[in-house]
Amino acid sequence: MADQYAQYGEDSKPTETPAIRWEEPPEGPVVVLLDQTRLPAEEVELVCTDASTLVEAIRSLAVRGAPLLGVAGAYGVALAAVRGFDVDEAANALAGARPTAVNLAVGVRRAQAAHRAEYARSGDPEQAATAALTAARALHEEDAEASARMAERGLALLDELLPGGGYRILTHCNTGALVSGGEGTAFAVALAAHRTGQLRRLWVDETRPLLQGARLTAYEAARNGMAYTLLTDNAAGSLFAAGEVDAVLIGADRIAADGSVANKVGSYPLAVLARYHHVPFIVVAPTTTIDLDTPDGASIEVEQRPGHEVTELTAPQVPTMGAEAGGGIPVAPLGTQAYNPAFDITPPELVTAIVTEEGAVSPVTAEALAGLCARSRPVST
Amino acid sequence: MADQYAQYGEDSKPTETPAIRWEEPPEGPVVVLLDQTRLPAEEVELVCTDASTLVEAIRSLAVRGAPLLGVAGAYGVALAAVRGFDVDEAANALAGARPTAVNLAVGVRRAQAAHRAEYARSGDPEQAATAALTAARALHEEDAEASARMAERGLALLDELLPGGGYRILTHCNTGALVSGGEGTAFAVALAAHRTGQLRRLWVDETRPLLQGARLTAYEAARNGMAYTLLTDNAAGSLFAAGEVDAVLIGADRIAADGSVANKVGSYPLAVLARYHHVPFIVVAPTTTIDLDTPDGASIEVEQRPGHEVTELTAPQVPTMGAEAGGGIPVAPLGTQAYNPAFDITPPELVTAIVTEEGAVSPVTAEALAGLCARSRPVST
Repeated sequence: MADQYAQYGEDSKPTETPAIRWEEPPEGPVVVLLDQTRLPAEEVELVCTDASTLVEAIRSLAVRGAPLLGVAGAYGVALAAVRGFDVDEAANALAGARPTAVNLAVGVRRAQAAHRAEYARSGDPEQAATAALTAARALHEEDAEASARMAERGLALLDELLPGGGYRILTHCNTGALVSGGEGTAFAVALAAHRTGQLRRLWVDETRPLLQGARLTAYEAARNGMAYTLLTDNAAGSLFAAGEVDAVLIGADRIAADGSVANKVGSYPLAVLARYHHVPFIVVAPTTTIDLDTPDGASIEVEQRPGHEVTELTAPQVPTMGAEAGGGIPVAPLGTQAYNPAFDITPPELVTAIVTEEGAVSPVTAEALAGLCARSRPVST
Repeated sequence: MADQYAQYGEDSKPTETPAIRWEEPPEGPVVVLLDQTRLPAEEVELVCTDASTLVEAIRSLAVRGAPLLGVAGAYGVALAAVRGFDVDEAANALAGARPTAVNLAVGVRRAQAAHRAEYARSGDPEQAATAALTAARALHEEDAEASARMAERGLALLDELLPGGGYRILTHCNTGALVSGGEGTAFAVALAAHRTGQLRRLWVDETRPLLQGARLTAYEAARNGMAYTLLTDNAAGSLFAAGEVDAVLIGADRIAADGSVANKVGSYPLAVLARYHHVPFIVVAPTTTIDLDTPDGASIEVEQRPGHEVTELTAPQVPTMGAEAGGGIPVAPLGTQAYNPAFDITPPELVTAIVTEEGAVSPVTAEALAGLCARSRPVST
């Protein structure tokens, strides 16, 4: 149970159940996911024996978070290949499961390309499947390494921007070990600050509608013994006005070539608040999140999610609470229409810095981002 | 049931159950409230036979909204007087039930002053009680009249700021017939625009943590056949960025002498977004909400509410969903601390105009507000 750690502060220990893993039981290989829709109430694992189960898990947000989606997509391709399914069909279904996070398609294409290249070389399906799995495992490892480097570089940036430590960091959505092969993106920076005694407070936006902040970031903060306080997304303005926020740290689902950042809905209002209050607004994401093929913010497809996520309440303990469209309890009148974009776009002029595993760029310019990508992509894709 | 009207759009009809009424059944006089915590699932009335029941109803938000709290407070004093309880004790308990809305204390003091004056004159407790009730009824009627005049003046302001109609108005929390003796404050302006065919869309912020937008504003909009769309508070930024908001209209719980506006938490972030996007930010409130004894925003006491409103989910259909502190289902890890201010403060420089029943002020200055109050208060208090 998550809760037992949450109560003990400093004695708590980090998550032991990994967000994703590849297993090879006698019945055949599987991708095992920690079902994030059930957290923090219970740690339930989902076992995917084929790509379509994994596609469903991605759509339902059982697995989520830009970097982890890339890893999941790559393992999904490997799973299809090892089990003898049509690899290209599986790859297309996986890449299209959610539109905004570029990492998903990047991870899928990487495993697919490895599979294709090996098959072209050897003509052996088994060797091709092994190549896909090797590519997925490499991405998984690289992602963990990228986390560690982002944390280091993010901490150095904080030290430069806010000398003296004692950081009060506001974060949105969930960007920790649950979204990554390692310790995450923005959360990994806050965690590094905690470990060096420089984190005074992590302010956790609850992140409506799906409460990833309340359910997942609070869970990760509690397990790591960090000083954290939860708030409604509405209350962030009061914290800024009271001078209680030293920096905003968020992740990203896609960064366009011009530096526009697609991230969980509610990020853009924080960027505007941060600008108004002269507080640094820092985006932490691996270079795989930078999509040079997307020229600007307007070109990013923003996923629109079902209205019932807004009109009905659901809680992780009670997978089905009612008989309505989303299985939740309606809080708005029947027939209420909802506007429910999953992400929003923050223009580069509101972003103080983008921190990647290859380094930080500040100010955020197309040239600087292109330079980072050139450094990071001589080998991969 | 609310839902039957919500489905029929233009055929729907306005609320028939008033938010508050005074009744005199054979067992003695009572104050009857529509329990707003149960909306929109069901229309349940709460019958208060004494001031302490009413205090509890105010604290639990069964009755809420700045103008209506004033009316409720005045009726509460009358109830104590008519039933022979200690009037000053009841008045103090009522006035202190919630700290931020100035109207509550103003309404209480008005009925109390009428009671005191009549008792000093006649020495007759019954006549004094009748005087308190008369004062409460007068306030109730004046509030309804003030609503109508605010709606008229607000509509005129919109026409001036945004000639041509077709308004897309964003609102926060609930400011309609449920908060007033009449049709409300900000909502009344949107309703007037709807009736004249000038409302293109009412964007309804759900208003976490207590979802007054989803539960109450959506309910009132549906019953009035208005074109409305619900959104999470996080999604407002995306609407501004897309140019989908022509004006923000909100109410107020207290307006300081300098024009600082205390309103439901989340109002200030909207004001900052509105400024960033050059969209008018309009506050609609009766002059009783202006508190000349409070010099500025920093002097306004902001009510801090229990953390379980954030850490647990509750739904109106299920008064008790779990065994936790707030009777809801926990969504955050056990022991999670929450920051839960009920209100925030918007400084006058971010407010385009304040619309009252006595007229609108724009720009918002201490002098202009003092002038309005001088016009409106030759008789009362």
